[in-house]
Amino acid sequence: MKIICNKSELLKGVSIVSKAVPSKTTMSIMQCILIDASQNEINLIANDMELGIETVISGEIAEKGKIALEAKMFREIISKMPDNDVTIVTDDSLKASITCEKVKFNIIGKSADEFSYLPQIEHSDSIVISEYTLKRIIRQTIFSISDNENSPMMTGELFEIDEDRLRVSSLDGHRISMRNIKLKNVYSSKKVIVPGKTLNEISSIIGDDTEKNVNIFFTPNHILFEFDNTLVLSRLIEGDYFNVDQMITRDYETKVTVNKRELYDSIDRSTLFIREGDKRPIIINITDDNLELKINNSTHGSMDENIGITKEGKDLIIGFNPKFLMDVLRVIDGDEVEMFMVNPKSPCFIRDEEDSYIYLILPINFNTVS
Amino acid sequence: MKIICNKSELLKGVSIVSKAVPSKTTMSIMQCILIDASQNEINLIANDMELGIETVISGEIAEKGKIALEAKMFREIISKMPDNDVTIVTDDSLKASITCEKVKFNIIGKSADEFSYLPQIEHSDSIVISEYTLKRIIRQTIFSISDNENSPMMTGELFEIDEDRLRVSSLDGHRISMRNIKLKNVYSSKKVIVPGKTLNEISSIIGDDTEKNVNIFFTPNHILFEFDNTLVLSRLIEGDYFNVDQMITRDYETKVTVNKRELYDSIDRSTLFIREGDKRPIIINITDDNLELKINNSTHGSMDENIGITKEGKDLIIGFNPKFLMDVLRVIDGDEVEMFMVNPKSPCFIRDEEDSYIYLILPINFNTVS
Repeated sequence: MKIICNKSELLKGVSIVSKAVPSKTTMSIMQCILIDASQNEINLIANDMELGIETVISGEIAEKGKIALEAKMFREIISKMPDNDVTIVTDDSLKASITCEKVKFNIIGKSADEFSYLPQIEHSDSIVISEYTLKRIIRQTIFSISDNENSPMMTGELFEIDEDRLRVSSLDGHRISMRNIKLKNVYSSKKVIVPGKTLNEISSIIGDDTEKNVNIFFTPNHILFEFDNTLVLSRLIEGDYFNVDQMITRDYETKVTVNKRELYDSIDRSTLFIREGDKRPIIINITDDNLELKINNSTHGSMDENIGITKEGKDLIIGFNPKFLMDVLRVIDGDEVEMFMVNPKSPCFIRDEEDSYIYLILPINFNTVS
Repeated sequence: MKIICNKSELLKGVSIVSKAVPSKTTMSIMQCILIDASQNEINLIANDMELGIETVISGEIAEKGKIALEAKMFREIISKMPDNDVTIVTDDSLKASITCEKVKFNIIGKSADEFSYLPQIEHSDSIVISEYTLKRIIRQTIFSISDNENSPMMTGELFEIDEDRLRVSSLDGHRISMRNIKLKNVYSSKKVIVPGKTLNEISSIIGDDTEKNVNIFFTPNHILFEFDNTLVLSRLIEGDYFNVDQMITRDYETKVTVNKRELYDSIDRSTLFIREGDKRPIIINITDDNLELKINNSTHGSMDENIGITKEGKDLIIGFNPKFLMDVLRVIDGDEVEMFMVNPKSPCFIRDEEDSYIYLILPINFNTVS
């Protein structure tokens, strides 16, 4: 094989597919990127069997062929090359020589025969969404997945398509995040659980262009994202997701309308007195026109803060994990948010009128005598 | 005490003096910042007995007094306050109430009586240097101090003043860095060893304005830096510094003139094959007009690179710790550097004609058969 590519084009491609190279594996072939120039285009591929990424880069194929190169070293070599054309030549003994100007590296590759290509996916059942919207919807829900491998379903997000609606939900046992968006076309109904890791990687690869589209294809076991010259293929998480609709209610006894920034900053300050590992809730006292946030910490001191609000319904004292509230406030647009509560033991909902977002947060019990 | 200061002014002052708060200490008073508003200005002071910093901030003193507040918590509280005036009020029980708009924190302080003020230093023997020059000269030499506490002198830098010359030297047993600068005035001779920690902190506090000056005062045991409204006082390291002049020679058998950027990038690439903890040198082969850098690593592969140079004198094969060369190349201005060498076992010098900088690097022996 002999190929010539511009350094930055090559580095971009290598960086993208590197996201499917596992940091730890006992199979050394999985730590490799396959360069496949056996046809008429240069393909870079990485595949850890859960997640696979393939991207086409521009460049010249002087001699067709393919080779697998250790991803980390290959990427570092390319990143440190001068900004010029990089030539990669391989010989029968799997030696790859990578040259650029007067710089020459030799590394030993692996045979492409050992490498697992991405499975072929039928390109029939798909939806279209802009890079911007996909990136956004992931950011707005990904924080409430769980990293507990004992509950695999919680480590993914539910993607539900119903006609021209896409609903994305995640939950970790303490909270639910849910986003609804309108699609440009009508599609057949689908319901799949996408691994959180896949969504994180996708989100770091795609831009936030409203004009560029991502095609998403579905099969019973896989989801395939297609954009630019790149394919990201991921296994789905098997099983029936939790019945999130059953957990959502519109009932409330107390409704609070509050400035998002003020509430966020106030909770942020309160965390000064809550050290990591310390599971103490923040306690919010809601009365007419006022939300009081008060922290007493015998070691460090106390904090007391009042925020002007609009209240509807009963007064309420309720405790929360401050991080959960901040996670939600960080991803909501607009100046104000509405919080719907029933009592100190029932879920609090933060939602807008159109249900474009619904966030559920379970409160934390607190000892009122504390 | 009752003082009112703008949040950003207060935060700036607290951030500066925090640099003299030790991260670990058994004396809790040392973890505090003293707010001294007992006279007509607001002083913030921190002092760990080796390094002390004092800064005056603008603000209103509504009631004179002083208090010591735990630095980390105090700084975090101020940093999270709204951008507005912050009021600090203390009572007889050492409770400090810190308020800003509707936000109120209460923390318990310590009595100012426990606090050690900076010793009074005679302001007689001083030199003047611009912030820009001081920051620069520190950056250009600080990398070759040692962090080995068993050799305290190597953890500092030698500052020598002779008439209108300041020379700053550092060494760690493997290399020497030396910078000469011309001062605007003539001063009496001085020779002091300044702790590296002090120089690092100073460097992070001062700006790089060529128009702003730093006054440096000397006493037998202390050095005092005075700039803006800030004093930084540091103990000196006791003892006679190494005789660096004895280590410097002008003899050479091989002189190489090389593009700094090309050499730096080339060494940077070579480090791909030298893993951390791996003490292998890079081996440089100097022949007419050519510098070859070659790495053979049985595990990872090989690298071979050639750089065009101007050579004077003998051919030479010599090995270096790549980091030592890169540290030097990083802080030299200009496009080209000159390297002076005698043989593979004698020091290599990188210096300019005027001796505004002299860097000595000991080579590493290598097995030519490897």
